[in-house]
Amino acid sequence: MYHNQFSSFMPPQRVLMGAGPANIYPSVALAMAKPTIGHLDPSFIEMMDQVKSHLQYAFQTENKMTGAISAPGSAGMEACFVNLVEPGDTVIVCINGVFGGRMKEIAERCGAKVVTYEEQLGKPIDPEKLEQTLALHPDASVVAFVHAETSTGVLSDAQALCEISRKNNCLTIVDAVTSVAGSPVRVDEWGIDAVYTGSQKCLSCVPGLSPVTFSPKAVAKIMDRKQQIRSWFLDQSLLMGYWGDGSNNDKRSYHHTAPVNSLYALHEALVLLRNETLETSWLRHNQNHEVLRDGLETLGLRYFVDPECRLPQLNSVYIPDGVDDVEVRAKLLTDYGLEIGGGLGALAGKIWRIGLMGAAANPSNVALCLKALADVLPTKH
Amino acid sequence: MYHNQFSSFMPPQRVLMGAGPANIYPSVALAMAKPTIGHLDPSFIEMMDQVKSHLQYAFQTENKMTGAISAPGSAGMEACFVNLVEPGDTVIVCINGVFGGRMKEIAERCGAKVVTYEEQLGKPIDPEKLEQTLALHPDASVVAFVHAETSTGVLSDAQALCEISRKNNCLTIVDAVTSVAGSPVRVDEWGIDAVYTGSQKCLSCVPGLSPVTFSPKAVAKIMDRKQQIRSWFLDQSLLMGYWGDGSNNDKRSYHHTAPVNSLYALHEALVLLRNETLETSWLRHNQNHEVLRDGLETLGLRYFVDPECRLPQLNSVYIPDGVDDVEVRAKLLTDYGLEIGGGLGALAGKIWRIGLMGAAANPSNVALCLKALADVLPTKH
Repeated sequence: MYHNQFSSFMPPQRVLMGAGPANIYPSVALAMAKPTIGHLDPSFIEMMDQVKSHLQYAFQTENKMTGAISAPGSAGMEACFVNLVEPGDTVIVCINGVFGGRMKEIAERCGAKVVTYEEQLGKPIDPEKLEQTLALHPDASVVAFVHAETSTGVLSDAQALCEISRKNNCLTIVDAVTSVAGSPVRVDEWGIDAVYTGSQKCLSCVPGLSPVTFSPKAVAKIMDRKQQIRSWFLDQSLLMGYWGDGSNNDKRSYHHTAPVNSLYALHEALVLLRNETLETSWLRHNQNHEVLRDGLETLGLRYFVDPECRLPQLNSVYIPDGVDDVEVRAKLLTDYGLEIGGGLGALAGKIWRIGLMGAAANPSNVALCLKALADVLPTKH
Repeated sequence: MYHNQFSSFMPPQRVLMGAGPANIYPSVALAMAKPTIGHLDPSFIEMMDQVKSHLQYAFQTENKMTGAISAPGSAGMEACFVNLVEPGDTVIVCINGVFGGRMKEIAERCGAKVVTYEEQLGKPIDPEKLEQTLALHPDASVVAFVHAETSTGVLSDAQALCEISRKNNCLTIVDAVTSVAGSPVRVDEWGIDAVYTGSQKCLSCVPGLSPVTFSPKAVAKIMDRKQQIRSWFLDQSLLMGYWGDGSNNDKRSYHHTAPVNSLYALHEALVLLRNETLETSWLRHNQNHEVLRDGLETLGLRYFVDPECRLPQLNSVYIPDGVDDVEVRAKLLTDYGLEIGGGLGALAGKIWRIGLMGAAANPSNVALCLKALADVLPTKH
């Protein structure tokens, strides 16, 4: 009685050098295929405890409220805002790209009075300008900014921005989607209050999870809210009943059904990171970036971002005059199985974003990318 | 320089006969391990179109706004409410278990005036009582109920409840997490306006995704809202830019990074369902249920739910007097690798929930469960 009328999907093999997802290591792919077990199985709880401890390492934090939102990075962003922002709160959002713009939209939907400081695309958030903005808005309670802007390839000085925010009695929400494991992120040392990342970038896991961590000050704010959190699914006070509060005898209560197999993959990706160490991972991203950068410049490509605030894991270059964006990227994809990222928002058609994230940050990818671009680009531009 | 200080996780092999997740077919597990590709790759868009069409089949609908929320079933529930409910709207929530209760909580967080009709646990929602409730609240705009209550194993008459709601000019939000593919769900024929399910139950996929579908009337309400949707991540008007509106020339815009590998698994699970057909899947769930039921009754176990509203895929039985709930379930798990579900909420310690969902609904699981229970339960109770 079984008909094979409908067919399975077999994805093509791609080298993923866009803005994410990145390629994953074989053991992470295999982890996804391990047998599903119950989300309250004692073995699963034990694995979640390990994921939590590995995430504390990845974030460089001892925050007890550390875990992974069971949804992609955008949900991690929303989780930080819905938990820390109450209707009527004044929130300062620093915008230097698409993801800062998304923060503004989410903060508005939380009912916040949003004040923006907008920076030129391709430039980092300027601590002095944040300070000036804060001086004009002494009622602000939250400052939000993107550490590594995925739409431009710019790194901002999170430590300086957090220090200024703290002096002005503001909690900080930091987007570290593209930075964690590719560039240093030191949550405790820098005093970040709420930070989220994505599984699918420098952590080299499949897309779909958003690791988050909240400082004790952020937790105090969550517990002391005047109004209920507007999202049940993202309510950290409920989620911590499931992820545990760090005590030895904490009992886990059911909140939602965890994405069991995706968490296997995150566990495996974090085990690989711990065994490699963060320092070696940062170094590897940087070394591959330097070779790529030299090669791109030899090809005549110009970087969109100044060297001092350039992300090694996301190389934004101007599309040369007279070169067809879509045609080049389609040719790279079809002929070389190579994905590079196009521009996003206002930068669509103007830049390419070449990712070196996680497992994708390796010499053979760099070589492939440089040779394929050399083949595809017109010789003079 | 590579140290293997931290270890991979290897889950134990379990037979999953709880309230979900259920076991998956081997080809679904393998689908998870297929190579990750970009979420805007032409091949991936093509696969998403197939997922959408397969979901229309699973839901028995032609709704264009059909897709999968990139998060578990609870997020699917929240998606239906945040999109269809505006602050101040009167929402009638029919409660006959934990998941009806969760609907109430989410509706309140959306700012709704919530009116509840509470039914006894183990009983279905009564169409007459809904009618009476509606008569008292002519301003109601939404009726929400659970089709298959996962906390009790009760099936309600969704068709009758939707008809009454429609006559009273209310949109319907229906939880079909446990019903889809296990019991008939006919979205168009029954006139359901918004419905969500979970990937990890009778669809036999890994947990982490929530298929949803919205009727044209629901879409009109979303497009005609007075206030912005409070969640950016779950905003269907944005999500449809990514899942496509069904036209041939629709261009996909980036919203969030899709959980690529989990969607491979959903695609494969839906291919298996289409090849098996819904009718055969419903029959298989029922046939295995009948054998299990006869066996459980022979063991002296009594069903919590009357035969006429009993879910074949979720068998709730009273825990016999003098039997230790936790001890029995721990013994089944440890000695037989068999997971059955405990009671949830008010029914904790009072019932067991024995699932026959998706791939887990097969004769060898039924045999294992009956023999293991016969071994573990005291001979007289």
